[in-house]
Amino acid sequence: MIPYARRMDGMKASEIRELLKLVDRPEVISFAGGIPDPALFPAQAARSAYDKALRDPAAALQYGVSEGYAPLREWIAARMRGEGVPASAENILVTAGSQQGLDFLAKALISPGDTILSEYPTYLGALQAFCAYEPRYDRLRLDGGNETPAAYSDRARATGALKALYLVPDFANPTGLSLARPQREAALALARELGALVIEDAAYRALRFEGDAQPSLQALDVASCGDLEQSRVVYLGTFSKTVAPGMRVGWVCAPRAMIAKLTLINQASALHVSSINQIAMLAIVEAGLDPLISAARAHYRAKRDALLDALARYAPGLACTMPQGGLFSWATLPQGMDAAALLRRALAEAKVAFVPGGAFHPDGGGANTLRLSYSLPSIARIEEGIGRLAKLL
Amino acid sequence: MIPYARRMDGMKASEIRELLKLVDRPEVISFAGGIPDPALFPAQAARSAYDKALRDPAAALQYGVSEGYAPLREWIAARMRGEGVPASAENILVTAGSQQGLDFLAKALISPGDTILSEYPTYLGALQAFCAYEPRYDRLRLDGGNETPAAYSDRARATGALKALYLVPDFANPTGLSLARPQREAALALARELGALVIEDAAYRALRFEGDAQPSLQALDVASCGDLEQSRVVYLGTFSKTVAPGMRVGWVCAPRAMIAKLTLINQASALHVSSINQIAMLAIVEAGLDPLISAARAHYRAKRDALLDALARYAPGLACTMPQGGLFSWATLPQGMDAAALLRRALAEAKVAFVPGGAFHPDGGGANTLRLSYSLPSIARIEEGIGRLAKLL
Repeated sequence: MIPYARRMDGMKASEIRELLKLVDRPEVISFAGGIPDPALFPAQAARSAYDKALRDPAAALQYGVSEGYAPLREWIAARMRGEGVPASAENILVTAGSQQGLDFLAKALISPGDTILSEYPTYLGALQAFCAYEPRYDRLRLDGGNETPAAYSDRARATGALKALYLVPDFANPTGLSLARPQREAALALARELGALVIEDAAYRALRFEGDAQPSLQALDVASCGDLEQSRVVYLGTFSKTVAPGMRVGWVCAPRAMIAKLTLINQASALHVSSINQIAMLAIVEAGLDPLISAARAHYRAKRDALLDALARYAPGLACTMPQGGLFSWATLPQGMDAAALLRRALAEAKVAFVPGGAFHPDGGGANTLRLSYSLPSIARIEEGIGRLAKLL
Repeated sequence: MIPYARRMDGMKASEIRELLKLVDRPEVISFAGGIPDPALFPAQAARSAYDKALRDPAAALQYGVSEGYAPLREWIAARMRGEGVPASAENILVTAGSQQGLDFLAKALISPGDTILSEYPTYLGALQAFCAYEPRYDRLRLDGGNETPAAYSDRARATGALKALYLVPDFANPTGLSLARPQREAALALARELGALVIEDAAYRALRFEGDAQPSLQALDVASCGDLEQSRVVYLGTFSKTVAPGMRVGWVCAPRAMIAKLTLINQASALHVSSINQIAMLAIVEAGLDPLISAARAHYRAKRDALLDALARYAPGLACTMPQGGLFSWATLPQGMDAAALLRRALAEAKVAFVPGGAFHPDGGGANTLRLSYSLPSIARIEEGIGRLAKLL
């Protein structure tokens, strides 16, 4: 009997994940993973980029510094400046996707019993990253309700401190919804009043199909406090949804003091993100990130249209979100229906997969909700899959 | 003031590391980093491997499973079987170097106050990985001394549980020394008696210059208990010292139940090691790992000879270890001398760098010791550097 640490009690294999391991079979139409469509991968640019990187093997194949490859940090900082955040390279840590940024931030911040505020539902991978550090969760309500800052901090103080608000402001995983400007302002005001940080997960931010872009929480906060070094927002970015997830390159943009802490954590964990991948990623984005983003927007927009169209046609009674970007729509079944049970039937009888919504709720709610990702199946398969699913309903 | 978690108290930027950031200047001869010589990097094999990987961009650039790329896990398992460990792919987790394996293991095992037993001095990166989970350390003495298992467990019980022995049995970082067979047996017997795991860090194991190979702790333990699934040894391997560290590919070999726990941790951290790097690494090692190892052995052996030769000639009074493999020798200055002070003088007056030994001692000891790595400087620079250093002594 191996004496695991107590934190492992909160890290369990999910039954749903085990079920969804079966969706790789070609006969299953899967709306489950939030997986980029490989048709969008910049294969030719990647070949050129790795070829270029390997012209200097002493750099591409050697250890690198934990902060990340300096020219890539510069490039990302310039990109952040284009979004209204006055970052320099010293404000950037390169991470193995934004998921690793979530882990490192949780490690830096959360002592057992501390509170994380998030909307319910929220990103499952964030809950998994945080859970290793044994937080409690409280539900963030940006429409007010009858929550006051005092109510949040009273509940938090019972077990620890209120450490951070976690938000996916743009085309959230799992709902596909975005925060309107007043909700962004409300989140920042609440964080200020609570003395808490804000973790801004911007994984889908670039994938806007329509509507006006909202400023990032970090840009809004910097505009209000005047200085990135004084900002309470930590921004997590990634190239996984715009270039390619298999390279595992993302970043954290934060005040320098926070970057220094996260760099220590990286030194003690994977040391640094693969040198060759950082060098190749810089070559790819220098050759042109914006055309990749434009192509992804058009591609996923057409798929979203196909999904919503099929849902309207085949399942007009199903309440679904209407995402203006990203990879997900979120459906709500009639009260009392169980999406996990539906998944079992859908896999067995219709060969269709999705993710039941319960896993995205820290409080065990959301049993009648589900996440539909339209990123991977073809338009014809989206229509076919929703048709099959609707027959079950 | 950001409310960091308590664990960050133990994660501090080291003054020595800051000093050693300066050694990149060409006029400095550095014996500091344990950095592979890029002259050994398989540049042509890497070009072919990345080219081959990118013939299937939908695999190379896509997300992968947290366990690792199945064919690479198979290859590693076969390699482990060649070393006397009856592993299958299910016993292998691919990690971003063995450093990430140390982090994941510590996360799985250590609750605050738990005890890790290690030799003093020991690998600094392991101490950094472990410290994030707030263990205490106790000094492992494989020559017996007056330590008994009861003494170890009494001291451990005062603050937590005794979780694991951490060992680098072959050509250890920092000493360059290896455990003889009786010491290996003693370590396993002690672990059995204490009910503790054994973390076997095999980072340098392949780099033997001379002498007979010893069985790994894992192979010895499996031979004794008859079954890898029953073994208490977790083996950490890496391609960083035999192929290239910049690809960040290593592995854990362990019972399946432990691999399942570490996979959950990986899911919540970086998700998985870069797909393209795993696929390319497999292509490189399939094209031939053993010739790379042979070349590295000959190369580093010549450099070790140059170091020991120069030390014998210029600093005959300095007590040094005589490594039979790996990248390091360990020197002991006369009692009362301070290696950290010597480093400051060496950088300023002789333009020579090394790592003072204090950082490798969890108890703050070892002030008069230092680590000399011979892997990176040329043979001429090794001779020149030791000459300059000796003049200071």
